[in-house]
Amino acid sequence: MARWQPETTQRLIVAAVDLFTEQGYDATTVAQIAERAGVTKSTFFRHFSDKRELLVAGQETLSRLLAEGIAEAPADASPLQAVAAGLERASSAMGPANRELGPRLRAAIAASTELQERDALKSVGLAAAMTAALVARGVPDPTAHLAAELGVLAFKRGYAQWSESDRDDTRGLAYHALSALRDLRTATASLG
Amino acid sequence: MARWQPETTQRLIVAAVDLFTEQGYDATTVAQIAERAGVTKSTFFRHFSDKRELLVAGQETLSRLLAEGIAEAPADASPLQAVAAGLERASSAMGPANRELGPRLRAAIAASTELQERDALKSVGLAAAMTAALVARGVPDPTAHLAAELGVLAFKRGYAQWSESDRDDTRGLAYHALSALRDLRTATASLG
Repeated sequence: MARWQPETTQRLIVAAVDLFTEQGYDATTVAQIAERAGVTKSTFFRHFSDKRELLVAGQETLSRLLAEGIAEAPADASPLQAVAAGLERASSAMGPANRELGPRLRAAIAASTELQERDALKSVGLAAAMTAALVARGVPDPTAHLAAELGVLAFKRGYAQWSESDRDDTRGLAYHALSALRDLRTATASLG
Repeated sequence: MARWQPETTQRLIVAAVDLFTEQGYDATTVAQIAERAGVTKSTFFRHFSDKRELLVAGQETLSRLLAEGIAEAPADASPLQAVAAGLERASSAMGPANRELGPRLRAAIAASTELQERDALKSVGLAAAMTAALVARGVPDPTAHLAAELGVLAFKRGYAQWSESDRDDTRGLAYHALSALRDLRTATASLG
């Protein structure tokens, strides 16, 4: 029955992240992840090509949503307003399961250099996607690059705040990400 | 005689980067790197614990120099002036050999996901070192984090411009890094 389970992808991700935290990334096998998630190995391989892929899965989706939000922002939007539109679009794809995953994911990453490298490259990919979308709007470099980096920082800070906040706080990821973006914008005035 | 060669570390790095570009990171062995550099495997292992370490080698030094420059900036320096002092300190450690290595290193990184991940985590490490040094000066978050990210961007942009510039351009890395930092500072005014 597992193959028809709608939440299988999410269960595999949670199982993998928990195992990475408990015993390390290297020591964790696909068989263990499948077992923890209550599915067969062949079910795992219908969802992901390997255990590394499992961590990359969300990146293409996030990059696409960030870029789409930037591309579809009003023509007179400033670079940072366009970035805000990208953050809102990407945030709309993140639900309660993503919120629950946050602290576990951070623990797994903190425990593994390999996952830290993977996570760092993910940020580079998100920044590149946003930079390209801003350049396509006519934003010159280095403003485009700078705005994209602020967007990545805001998304990461917003995600951390959202996933660590009280569960009776019903404000979504978009609220926290845009709030972090405003804080970063304000901080530019103090750079000197 | 190889063990007394003062430039052995640099030769090993150049040999490794060239081999990574030619045949990929995974396919390159320590034995091949040593052979290309004209030294024995045991000489390699006196300099580096493995081929991965070879790429990380400069990171601790750079992080230390960036942090020292920030720590020793005048007490009334703004966050970005302190970052500039860090960039100057780190730049002073980079000579002609580092300049020659730039294009080769970028080619090797472009060809390997593993090296991209390693390089991305290096940037995270440099940003963390600068953030900590700024916080120690009393710069509040997120200004410290933002200033550190600008510093990393400026160092990377400056290094690219320096290593790609005409060889009769005798301006050092510090000139290019500080110039990039000024451009990024100026760009903050166009964020909207």
